[in-house]
Amino acid sequence: MTLSPEQQAEIDAARAETRPTLRPVSEGIEALLYSAIPVLDHGFVRVVDYMGDDAAIVQAARVSYGAGTRKARDDRGLIRYLMRHWHSTPFEMCEIKLHVKLPIFVARQWIRHRTANVNEYSARYSILDREFYIPQPEQLAAQSRSNRQGRGSVLQGEEAETVLRLLREDSTRGYDNYQWMLNEGPDGAPADEGRAGLARELARMNLTSNVYTQWYWKIDLHNLFHFLRLRADPHAQYEIRVYADAMCEIAKAWVPAAYEAFEEYRLGAVQFSSSAMSCLRRMLAGETVTQENSGMSAGEWREFQAALAG
Amino acid sequence: MTLSPEQQAEIDAARAETRPTLRPVSEGIEALLYSAIPVLDHGFVRVVDYMGDDAAIVQAARVSYGAGTRKARDDRGLIRYLMRHWHSTPFEMCEIKLHVKLPIFVARQWIRHRTANVNEYSARYSILDREFYIPQPEQLAAQSRSNRQGRGSVLQGEEAETVLRLLREDSTRGYDNYQWMLNEGPDGAPADEGRAGLARELARMNLTSNVYTQWYWKIDLHNLFHFLRLRADPHAQYEIRVYADAMCEIAKAWVPAAYEAFEEYRLGAVQFSSSAMSCLRRMLAGETVTQENSGMSAGEWREFQAALAG
Amino acid sequence: MTLSPEQQAEIDAARAETRPTLRPVSEGIEALLYSAIPVLDHGFVRVVDYMGDDAAIVQAARVSYGAGTRKARDDRGLIRYLMRHWHSTPFEMCEIKLHVKLPIFVARQWIRHRTANVNEYSARYSILDREFYIPQPEQLAAQSRSNRQGRGSVLQGEEAETVLRLLREDSTRGYDNYQWMLNEGPDGAPADEGRAGLARELARMNLTSNVYTQWYWKIDLHNLFHFLRLRADPHAQYEIRVYADAMCEIAKAWVPAAYEAFEEYRLGAVQFSSSAMSCLRRMLAGETVTQENSGMSAGEWREFQAALAG
Amino acid sequence: MTLSPEQQAEIDAARAETRPTLRPVSEGIEALLYSAIPVLDHGFVRVVDYMGDDAAIVQAARVSYGAGTRKARDDRGLIRYLMRHWHSTPFEMCEIKLHVKLPIFVARQWIRHRTANVNEYSARYSILDREFYIPQPEQLAAQSRSNRQGRGSVLQGEEAETVLRLLREDSTRGYDNYQWMLNEGPDGAPADEGRAGLARELARMNLTSNVYTQWYWKIDLHNLFHFLRLRADPHAQYEIRVYADAMCEIAKAWVPAAYEAFEEYRLGAVQFSSSAMSCLRRMLAGETVTQENSGMSAGEWREFQAALAG
Repeated sequence: MTLSPEQQAEIDAARAETRPTLRPVSEGIEALLYSAIPVLDHGFVRVVDYMGDDAAIVQAARVSYGAGTRKARDDRGLIRYLMRHWHSTPFEMCEIKLHVKLPIFVARQWIRHRTANVNEYSARYSILDREFYIPQPEQLAAQSRSNRQGRGSVLQGEEAETVLRLLREDSTRGYDNYQWMLNEGPDGAPADEGRAGLARELARMNLTSNVYTQWYWKIDLHNLFHFLRLRADPHAQYEIRVYADAMCEIAKAWVPAAYEAFEEYRLGAVQFSSSAMSCLRRMLAGETVTQENSGMSAGEWREFQAALAG
Repeated sequence: MTLSPEQQAEIDAARAETRPTLRPVSEGIEALLYSAIPVLDHGFVRVVDYMGDDAAIVQAARVSYGAGTRKARDDRGLIRYLMRHWHSTPFEMCEIKLHVKLPIFVARQWIRHRTANVNEYSARYSILDREFYIPQPEQLAAQSRSNRQGRGSVLQGEEAETVLRLLREDSTRGYDNYQWMLNEGPDGAPADEGRAGLARELARMNLTSNVYTQWYWKIDLHNLFHFLRLRADPHAQYEIRVYADAMCEIAKAWVPAAYEAFEEYRLGAVQFSSSAMSCLRRMLAGETVTQENSGMSAGEWREFQAALAG
Repeated sequence: MTLSPEQQAEIDAARAETRPTLRPVSEGIEALLYSAIPVLDHGFVRVVDYMGDDAAIVQAARVSYGAGTRKARDDRGLIRYLMRHWHSTPFEMCEIKLHVKLPIFVARQWIRHRTANVNEYSARYSILDREFYIPQPEQLAAQSRSNRQGRGSVLQGEEAETVLRLLREDSTRGYDNYQWMLNEGPDGAPADEGRAGLARELARMNLTSNVYTQWYWKIDLHNLFHFLRLRADPHAQYEIRVYADAMCEIAKAWVPAAYEAFEEYRLGAVQFSSSAMSCLRRMLAGETVTQENSGMSAGEWREFQAALAG
Repeated sequence: MTLSPEQQAEIDAARAETRPTLRPVSEGIEALLYSAIPVLDHGFVRVVDYMGDDAAIVQAARVSYGAGTRKARDDRGLIRYLMRHWHSTPFEMCEIKLHVKLPIFVARQWIRHRTANVNEYSARYSILDREFYIPQPEQLAAQSRSNRQGRGSVLQGEEAETVLRLLREDSTRGYDNYQWMLNEGPDGAPADEGRAGLARELARMNLTSNVYTQWYWKIDLHNLFHFLRLRADPHAQYEIRVYADAMCEIAKAWVPAAYEAFEEYRLGAVQFSSSAMSCLRRMLAGETVTQENSGMSAGEWREFQAALAG
């Protein structure tokens, strides 16, 4: 990860001084605030701000469900109940703002989640940094033969080396030519006086999709959990999953009770279809169920077996 | 306004103690935090939490537009530029959470704004308070004859008295019968042992639309401004406008530079149609323009004249 | 249900004539178009327009997942795969527009689903009809003692009669006084020349929450299914569930393959938590699991047993 | 533009046969349905489906505002009134679904509009076509010196030639190496038996940002107009503006009255700030106003003068 000395100085300054507030404070996330968690070779996730904590979820639920909830359960129990019964609005009462640095092809997948606020670094206005994602050799996976969105075994030997070399060369050349086309010197003056320099909004099209971009990304806790459920999943692409994993750590520090409930009722949960439930009931009654008499397709049966095996 | 002694004690306790935080703090809104601003006869607006300040808007804009913005403008100038040019995403980086008590018919209008998070007091689970909105005599307006959504002159004498009496009687009777149907004593036990008591989710249908409900409402600053532009407008119904006015005061304390820009470029701004612009250019060139030669309908011309008169 | 003769004539006229289109057509829903499905005593649901069909879901999925999907599966199989694996965007490619007449207290619950477009009849501009929901005697349920949002046994004898009488009287009186306050004759002129008449936006506050309102409601299929999963559920309030049931019938006629998948993987599906999965694996391995050694709370264990019993 | 013979055959087949429907039909857009409108060198916009027409806007407005609107205005007048007074919900009752082929860097800008449904061609599952955007020489603009997001004069001579050559070479090389890394033959078998082939989800990172992608994009008319106001604007980047222009033509054919109102009250409209209105009133009263005595910044004054000049 590359934080510029200037960025690091800003982080240190922001962390040096506390201010008094009347708002709820989550100690766990205060300890992380502003610091960059490294992800991939040049990326990071940083908490820039947050609103609310576990108690804010409980407070919102108690507005909705009234005084009765007060005695019925303690906070942790109520949060688990809310998560189990898909009560989403109390979780929407917490909000987090992150600064993320990530490759363009990851950003394109990420942005498909529409329920967040985004301020992305604009390559229409500014010049992107000279940083590209190059996978670690152990991440250089072949296309899976059985699963069209999955990865197979890791590339070896000369093929792996060539792939890495090509990725590096094409990114570098693309970036160098981007810079040449821009023709901007360090002080904004033309690097070469004899040329006009191509508009930034056009030159950027020469960049490869592993170039890093960055954004501020703000989302409520309910939608963050939805994002994490999809992207911290083993089926998610490795390059986005590592960001999701970093955000899981952040959520755990911020709202420990909600995160625990999320693990129990979402990340570690399994959904069975109507047919799967029939099979399950027959199995618990002692019957031997096979795919043939299950009423499920081969694919569903395989997924069912995998879920039962854990 | 009626805050219960219990609620007031909670507010006092929350305001008694500050905690240290590394997050941005807005002094202006800290001074308001938790206190209830009275609205109408029993309603209020309270700030429960907030995220960000004027500097957060600037910070997000500078991520988007890069280092160049750093020198070009000071913070206030940049915020005005963003507002003027409809850059909405930096304003989305600030968030506020309010506790609002409001009559049901106001809540129904309010909830039409979908871009907010809401936790409403649930009359399925809990029992609503015995509080209804009764207008002040000077708000008892007749239907406007010229404007189908407007108010005309104020009702007088016996008509006014009768209206107030009917509103009071029907609300009270509706609530008393609601309570009778519920048949719940103060401790939750049946008030009358001989009756089962109607389900809360059914009994609530007997309440009139001026009964007060309450909710937690969380929204980002861009969408708050959009709400305020529509609801702090003189054409908005008085009973929602007073809530918008209270929130304008809150926004002003929270993000003074953004609020100033909002007043300049939204609240006090005027939009002219293509035809109106043609007329304006002719008028500035010294021509006398009338509705007949304006190309506008009578209604548009009237609105155009009103805008020019200010 | 009360459709005015004028509304019925409009429906008949709209159904009398077909027009040629190049768009996809779903035969099943064409047969329902415009006709009102009665719900409760005066409510209805009517399909006003729709976009797409089962094939549109498949087509969108094939844009996303490319030519490979073409051979791999037939349409029904692909739709089931998409539903099972939470691929929501292809279902968003279908859209439906409904005209719904419903009591205000149901509308308030309904509108909490924010991902739809709504045009509601405005009581600021217009006068509501003299129609209120009065439950059937068999729906007059007592508050459940065990479940704070549920209904218990049905009220009997004098208590039931009194409740029905009160609901009827309070609604009627509230509406009559609303009309008196408005003071509008059938032709818009004052009913009583000596009075000004209260503004509509104010008079409406005297109406009870069982008065009927109506709206146009437009939503995509993914979000419709989300709504139906929550509201066609046995735990949903009866008065909204009957609307959800009517919409299930509409969805079944419109997109039969998608609806079948929705029943299999959503309506009839069960989600087990991480702890429940552990218990299940132990049970399938022959172990006797009780609440005591399950790691679940009493509430969770009860829900787990209910799910296994089916 | 490149439509494959297979795609063209599909379009021809879809256009060959009409089906009867009871739904509203817009003749203007039926004439465009499925045909591809060419945009840039390989892109296009195609209407795939639509819901509603001008009459649907009127119908929804009349549900909201009641019978009174019936006499007051004809349809065109009502639509203009709605647009002028920012009544957005009736326009949300129309929906359109488009198939768009566009360069990745344009797609990244486009997707920032979150209020639409999207199914994008997935380079995780499938292989992108060998097509990249290369600007026409007259679009090869220099960076504007005065406006950080704008284009200046057109590049000339050797600089222009070199830029075009670099864009072509880097795109081509990037794509060729992408294909080499994938190692997939035309039948899906390895092109080179001795290599495993890199996973698609990884190989895509080598593509430059001018490679074409495609998606289905579905949006309601209100949000489409919002998109068009921002992107059919002269300040929008040329490469997205040409898509917006094509969609303006589509909207005009689909909902002619609404489009006319959009031109009058949005595209051709001007908004004046509170300060600008003060100046305007002084000017109309005969006063000479200069930037010095205007209360506006230099930038605002320039924009104000430009708006008045038209």
